[in-house]
This record gives sequence, C-alpha cells and structure tokens, in this order.
Amino acid sequence: MQNKAAVMHGIHDFRLEDVPVPEPGPNEVMVEIRAVGVCGSDGHYYEEGRIGSFVVREPLILGHESMGTVMALGDEATKHEVGERVTLEPGVPDGTCRECRAGHYNLCPNVRFFATPPIDGAFTNYVSIHEDFAFHLPDGLSDNAGALMEPLSVGIWACKKGNVTAGDHVLVTGAGPIGLLAMQVAYAQGATEVTVTDVASERLQIARDLGATRALNVAEEPLEEAGLEADVLIECSGNERALGEGIRCVRPVSPW
Amino acid sequence: MQNKAAVMHGIHDFRLEDVPVPEPGPNEVMVEIRAVGVCGSDGHYYEEGRIGSFVVREPLILGHESMGTVMALGDEATKHEVGERVTLEPGVPDGTCRECRAGHYNLCPNVRFFATPPIDGAFTNYVSIHEDFAFHLPDGLSDNAGALMEPLSVGIWACKKGNVTAGDHVLVTGAGPIGLLAMQVAYAQGATEVTVTDVASERLQIARDLGATRALNVAEEPLEEAGLEADVLIECSGNERALGEGIRCVRPVSPW
Amino acid sequence: MQNKAAVMHGIHDFRLEDVPVPEPGPNEVMVEIRAVGVCGSDGHYYEEGRIGSFVVREPLILGHESMGTVMALGDEATKHEVGERVTLEPGVPDGTCRECRAGHYNLCPNVRFFATPPIDGAFTNYVSIHEDFAFHLPDGLSDNAGALMEPLSVGIWACKKGNVTAGDHVLVTGAGPIGLLAMQVAYAQGATEVTVTDVASERLQIARDLGATRALNVAEEPLEEAGLEADVLIECSGNERALGEGIRCVRPVSPW
Amino acid sequence: MQNKAAVMHGIHDFRLEDVPVPEPGPNEVMVEIRAVGVCGSDGHYYEEGRIGSFVVREPLILGHESMGTVMALGDEATKHEVGERVTLEPGVPDGTCRECRAGHYNLCPNVRFFATPPIDGAFTNYVSIHEDFAFHLPDGLSDNAGALMEPLSVGIWACKKGNVTAGDHVLVTGAGPIGLLAMQVAYAQGATEVTVTDVASERLQIARDLGATRALNVAEEPLEEAGLEADVLIECSGNERALGEGIRCVRPVSPW
Repeated sequence: MQNKAAVMHGIHDFRLEDVPVPEPGPNEVMVEIRAVGVCGSDGHYYEEGRIGSFVVREPLILGHESMGTVMALGDEATKHEVGERVTLEPGVPDGTCRECRAGHYNLCPNVRFFATPPIDGAFTNYVSIHEDFAFHLPDGLSDNAGALMEPLSVGIWACKKGNVTAGDHVLVTGAGPIGLLAMQVAYAQGATEVTVTDVASERLQIARDLGATRALNVAEEPLEEAGLEADVLIECSGNERALGEGIRCVRPVSPW
Repeated sequence: MQNKAAVMHGIHDFRLEDVPVPEPGPNEVMVEIRAVGVCGSDGHYYEEGRIGSFVVREPLILGHESMGTVMALGDEATKHEVGERVTLEPGVPDGTCRECRAGHYNLCPNVRFFATPPIDGAFTNYVSIHEDFAFHLPDGLSDNAGALMEPLSVGIWACKKGNVTAGDHVLVTGAGPIGLLAMQVAYAQGATEVTVTDVASERLQIARDLGATRALNVAEEPLEEAGLEADVLIECSGNERALGEGIRCVRPVSPW
Repeated sequence: MQNKAAVMHGIHDFRLEDVPVPEPGPNEVMVEIRAVGVCGSDGHYYEEGRIGSFVVREPLILGHESMGTVMALGDEATKHEVGERVTLEPGVPDGTCRECRAGHYNLCPNVRFFATPPIDGAFTNYVSIHEDFAFHLPDGLSDNAGALMEPLSVGIWACKKGNVTAGDHVLVTGAGPIGLLAMQVAYAQGATEVTVTDVASERLQIARDLGATRALNVAEEPLEEAGLEADVLIECSGNERALGEGIRCVRPVSPW
Repeated sequence: MQNKAAVMHGIHDFRLEDVPVPEPGPNEVMVEIRAVGVCGSDGHYYEEGRIGSFVVREPLILGHESMGTVMALGDEATKHEVGERVTLEPGVPDGTCRECRAGHYNLCPNVRFFATPPIDGAFTNYVSIHEDFAFHLPDGLSDNAGALMEPLSVGIWACKKGNVTAGDHVLVTGAGPIGLLAMQVAYAQGATEVTVTDVASERLQIARDLGATRALNVAEEPLEEAGLEADVLIECSGNERALGEGIRCVRPVSPW
C-alpha cells in the first residue's frame, strides 16, 4: 500500500509525493479517497498561500470535500464495514469543550479541519478519521455527489439558520456552488420562490436550469430596482454590496 | 336578493329558512358562499347539540370552511373587488386584546368564530366579514379546494408548531381530513417520511394514495411494535391511546 | 381649557404657541402631560432639522417620552378613569397590517409615532391617544420616572432580543440614558456582570454608581485589550467602532 | 487510604463496608466526598428497591448530590488542582452519541449516572470522575451548599425551559427542595411573583420564608378558586391533580 498526495509547498507549487499511510487510531476508519471537490478556500491557498489568519507555512495537503471507501478499521471502530462507501465530515471537534458540550461543535476552537494549516486534507490516496465523521452513502448516490455532502451541508445550515419554510421567497446572492446548493435546499425545505443574483451570466444560466424562479444579473439590473421582497436572504457571494442591497430586500421581521 | 340558510334548531333538526341579507359594515365585504366544508365540529353540534362548553341554545347556522364571491363592499373596504373569489378565515379577533397585540390572534378571547354559538356560520347564501379575513383565491384553485383553506391551515399550523423540516420523519396519528392535510403540509415543508396511523382501512388507503410512506392499521398492528422513530408527532385522531403511544415513538429532543 | 405647545418651526427655532385642544376620538383618552423626556432624536431634529429620511418640513411638536393625567374619555374608552396617572406608548400602529397581525406592531409601516414628522408629540399641555397605549402608573413611581417608561422599554426590548438571562455577562457599549437603562434591565433579567464602555468619564461614573461591574473608558483603554468575554452585546453608542469591537468580545454561539 | 461506603444490599438494608479506592483514569480526578444530599430518588431506592424500570439487583452505593476535595489527578487531567473544592455533576455522558453531538447530553442513552443501577454513587469516601464534570466551588460557598448544585441545576433547567424572565408570575406546584430551588431561580431570572402550592403547611412556611409571594395550601383552598393567572408553571410535586390544575392557571400562549 502506497500513499500519494498532492502536497502544496507554496503558492502555485504543488508536488505529487509519497506520504505515510495514515494507520487508523482507536475509533478511526482508514478511507481510500475516491472523489474530492475543490473549494474556493483551496483556490485561495493555491493562489495566495493564505486565507485571513490561516497561512500555509509548512507543506500542506489541500482538499476537504471528499468521499471514499473504508479500507481498515481502528480499534473499537464499529460503525462502518470495510468496503463501505462513505462521505467525510472534514472537521473533527474535541467533543469536550464548552461549545461541543452545548452542541455547537462547529464552533469547537480545537477542531482539526482538513486542509487548514497545519492539518492535511484529502488530495491524497488515504486518510484516517474518527468513525463518527464518516457517513454511509446510499448506492443511488454517485461518488462525485458523495464528495459534495460537505458544501451541501453549508446550504442546509444556512437554510436552517434562516428558518426557510413552506411558502417562503428566498433571495440567494451569489450563484456559485454554495449559492446553487443553498437554493436547492431552500426548495427542499418548502420555499416556493428563489431569486438568485450574480454578475456572471453563465452562472445565472445554471441557476435557471436548476430551478431558480428568477436569476438576476445585478451588473445589468441593480437589485434595488428589481422590487424584490424576500422572507430570507442567504448571502453566498462574499460581496459587500450584495450583502447591503440584499438586506434591504428582506421583509421586516421581529426576533421576539 | 334573498338569503336562504340551513338553520339548526336542535339535534337532528335543520330547517331551510329565509334569513336577513347581511349588509357589509365598515371594512367588510359581503360574500356569496359557493362552497362549504362540513367539519367534525358541525357533526358534533348536529348529533349532540354541543361541543364541550359550547352549547346550541338558540337557532344557529353551522359551517365554517367556506369560500365564495365578493358581492358588495362596505365603507372603506379596499382590499377586494366585486366578483373576486375569496376564501374566508372564519374567526375574526378583536385586534386589541393582549393576545392580538402579541400576534396570537388565534387565542383572542373575544374572537367571533363562524358556527360557534351564538355566531352564525356559512351554511347560507350570503355572509359579511372583515375584508382582512377574506383571501384572494388564484384561478387555478377550484371552489371546493378554496373552501378547504381553513382545515389546511390547521395542518400548516401543526407543522409550524412541530418545526417540521427537511429530512424529518413525521408520525401522523389519525387519517381523517385533518391528518391527511397535515401529512401533505409535512411533505411541503420537506419531510421525507410520513407514517399515518388509523383503525379504518379505507382511510389508510387514502393516506397511501396521497403519498404516506407507511399507513399502519393500529387495530391490527400495535404502534409500539412497529419500531417507529419519528422526529415529530402530529396527533389528529383525538384518541387518548394514539396520543400516548405516539409520544413514545418520538425521538428524545431537548427544548433548550 | 387652553393648550400651549413648544412648536419647532426650524433648526433652533422653537416657539411657544396656542394649539387646539385635541378632543379624544372613539376609544381615545385625553391626557394632560406632566413630564416629558428629551430623547436624542429630539436633539437631532432641533440641531439638524432631520433624522435620516425624517425631515421637519412643517411646524412640529417634539417629545415622545411622556406621562400625564387622564382628563377626558372618548366614546367607548373604558380602560382608564379621569384623574388616573398614565405613561404613554408614543407609537400607535394600525392594528391590521401584516406586521400587526403577526404581533410585530413595532414594525407597523403605518404607525403614528409622536414627534415624527408629520405627527406631533408631547411638548404640549394635552394630547389624545388610543386607550390601549396609555398605561396605569403605580403610586410609587414619580412623574419623571413615569415619563421614562418609553426609553426603559428600549432596554427591555434589547435584553429580550439578546435573551439576557441568569448568570450572563453583558457588554453595554455606550453609557447614555439608553445604555444605562439597558444595563439595569440586564440585571433585572438576572445578569451577574455588566461591563459598560464610553469615552466620557462622567457618564462612566454614573454607570458605576448604578451598579456596572466594570466601566471602561475606551478612549484610554481599548476594548480589545480589556480581555472581555461577554455572552451578550447591547450596542447603545451609535459608534461604528464600538459595534465592531463589541462583536469581537462576544462568545461564539450558534443560533441552531 | 481506605474507602468506606454505605452500600445498599436491599430494601432497608444499608451496610458500611470497605470498597476499593477508585483510582482516577485518564482525564479523571479522584475526589474525597465532603457532603452529599439525599434525593427523593435515594429514598425510593431505600424504601422500594426501585424507581420505575431502575431496579437495585446488585449491591449499590446511593447518593448523587455531592461535593468534595480533589485528591489526585489522572493522566492528562489539567482542569483542577489537588486540594481544590469541587461540586460533581453526577451524570457522565458518552460525548459521541447523537444526543451528545447535538448538545443534549442530558439525554445521552449511555450516560453513567451516580446511584443509578448499576453505577455507584457518592455515599462513600472517594469517587473518581471525568474532570469536566467536577466544577470549582468559590470560597464563599459552604460544603453543604456545594453539594446542592445538582438539585439547583434542576431548577435552573426548569426556568430555562419555561423561559422565565423579568416581570413573570411563576406558579410552582410543590414546596419540596426542588420546588423551593426552582422558586429561587425564577427570582434570579427576574420573576416578580412566585406562587407556591403544597398540602404541607410546614413546607409552605419555608416557601414564605424564602420569599414566595404567595404560599397556598391546596388541601384547604383549591387552586382553581385562587384566581391565579401565571405566565409559567413549574410542576415539582409529582401530583397529577397539581399538574392538571396548574395548567389551567397558565395564560394562553402560542408557541409560534
């Protein structure tokens, strides 16, 4: 068994190298990676060597949207079988901090998150991970779809936080992969209208093909002139103006 | 213009009578009734002359699931046009009590609710109601469907209170009209599984036809042996045992 | 009966004038004003003639933090007696819009709010207001305290929205009247620590006198160096930097 | 070092015996018990040998309301120091089940809870427990008070679930230790009135001494005749009639 990885040594400097096979520890499973998505964050590391305060100072393996096949079980790992296809939740929290005890393990300050310096990610043949963070994939789901469970979960989380429910009109600013997944989750939670905005017409066309009620090119038609009245805003562009204009399209609600 | 009504004078005693045409007051619309559903409560009044503390002591017009056509507008009524098809929300609150100010107008102690003694209902040709409680019906919806907006709203309310959301398994005990509507709303809010129980096989067949994942005859197979694990229970049978057994099928959750 | 008012005709131009006695309409009470607070908004109108999109174009009576004595009852007004001391809620909503029906009457787009163009306020001898928006004052409360129920309600609302509860550490940025009231409400809801920040040492001294656990002059000691970890932030300064730095002092929480 | 324990061998059969000293495992602390409360559940085990489905079949050490002094640290235990006074949270969850991951670790099906068969409790000299479930006690708190943190937390939890907040009138049915603690927490969260009911006049006297606004002997004066209107009901009697009558005293609220 040999483990090859695409190791980032610096900006624009990826090298295919042999790395150790990660033997599974207690409660861990070793997974042969079969598909990995490329997140915007991977692009930032590759182009700029950093994202905010996260800086690549040592060689790092990128990739955190991944799935694969269970190859080996660590001691006491009982949740999966060898040969099972699983998708990976790439952040493993400590399970004992204040945030974890309160159920906000996404906020664990000690989380070990794939492809976040100095934790290696999934652009490699084999990874080992706590069995709780590998999830069985049904047969009907392709490998590529299985790798996208992580960005899909971003859309699910956004729609849960926004309390998207039956009959809502949801405004999604940004038609990249996250925006398109958020749109589809909004429909799954019962939204009846989703308006998507972007400045790239080809992205907006994908939004239309995936069911957007309205896909608006805000480079051509300012959002404020569109007369929108949304129940929920999901901002997926990272653009400050989109955020400001989006907020002004949301109906007044009171949090009490 | 003549107004005929089916007036209940006592148990099993309905009489078709002429009653006054209800001229619309300020902010009211007069509606010609086109379709009315028969609620379980109408049946109770007809068979027993009462529901709990609500007793029919004077002649009463029943019926509160209704729709019709706007025939006339009272002073300052501006929300509807003559000829418009509308469905009626049958309980008009006072708008100024503590519950109304807090947005819980369904709890208004001074609500005037159709077909609840001594307020007459919709088994008649014409009613007048505050314009806010008549709602425009789209062309694609039939008259009969329009009359069912009131029981549908019971299902919507139940699913909102139960926070039914994408991926949920919902248990609906009782396959009468309310249970079947609650099931359909649960799907609209993203539920992926709905189990319906009843003791009447013909009702369960309708549940199956309308998309129940599982329709269980609890007269033949006790619920406790079905191995169910539901996220939400919506009790629509009025049966005490269904309530008790249903609760035991719900996953533990913590309200914090 | 004569009604004098301090009428604002323009920036820095107040004139004491005779204005009509406001006869109470149906469900209204007429109140002789006994005490009125001066809100920051009154100052803005006086100094600048406007607040954002609200511009004083016609003569306007300012003042919306007020109390007084009921002098007369309109038709059907039954909640108060002549001679009763009442504090006034200065914004009367329409009671029928979407926001009102949902219980968010603070968001009513048709609210008639004292001292907001073109609605006159309480720098006058007599006002009339819907009886629901006058509230009985207990004997133990002074007139001046009674006039401050409106700004107090801002503090109550903030603490309710922030879910301040027993054991919390609350950070209040800004030690003006609103900040000091928010602090006191936070204690009433069970907060065990309240840190107040400002740049004016005399305001901070009042905060200390009223019970602030810590009163921090951020002109001298930057908030980011104070090592604070708050459960809730209540921003009462209107200062952008206070908002940004305050947010960074709040513990991570997840809205799910 | 010798470890004595009061071991229950059967109904009314306690024996003082030598038991092994519980060496602290990884992340555990060993605590010398200094004070232990006697819960109602301890009484049930002693008198009846069981509580519902929990049956004492093997010798069992009771007691789960406890505090003491840290005597030794297991490997990697870093949160406490030898000599530190700590109170103990008596239920240690697995930290990895669905309920734990969601922050509802109180619902962990694999919890190891003191004095619940077959897990021994604190009627002994020494116990070892995960460091996360021992909490530092401030000097100002007595040993006996420190042992009562566990029942106090029941009151905190009840008030949190009931959303007790400033200005509330809380009805507490049952003036035993749990009811009295719930009352005090309600005041700490800002309640302005607490009515306590019981059938034992000496318990009601304690409630009065601890600040109950009203202490009502429902053996003499039925609750339904007291004209109460409460915002929150906290049922601490275990009496079915108290629950039913208590519910009827609560103001209508809508969970939406």
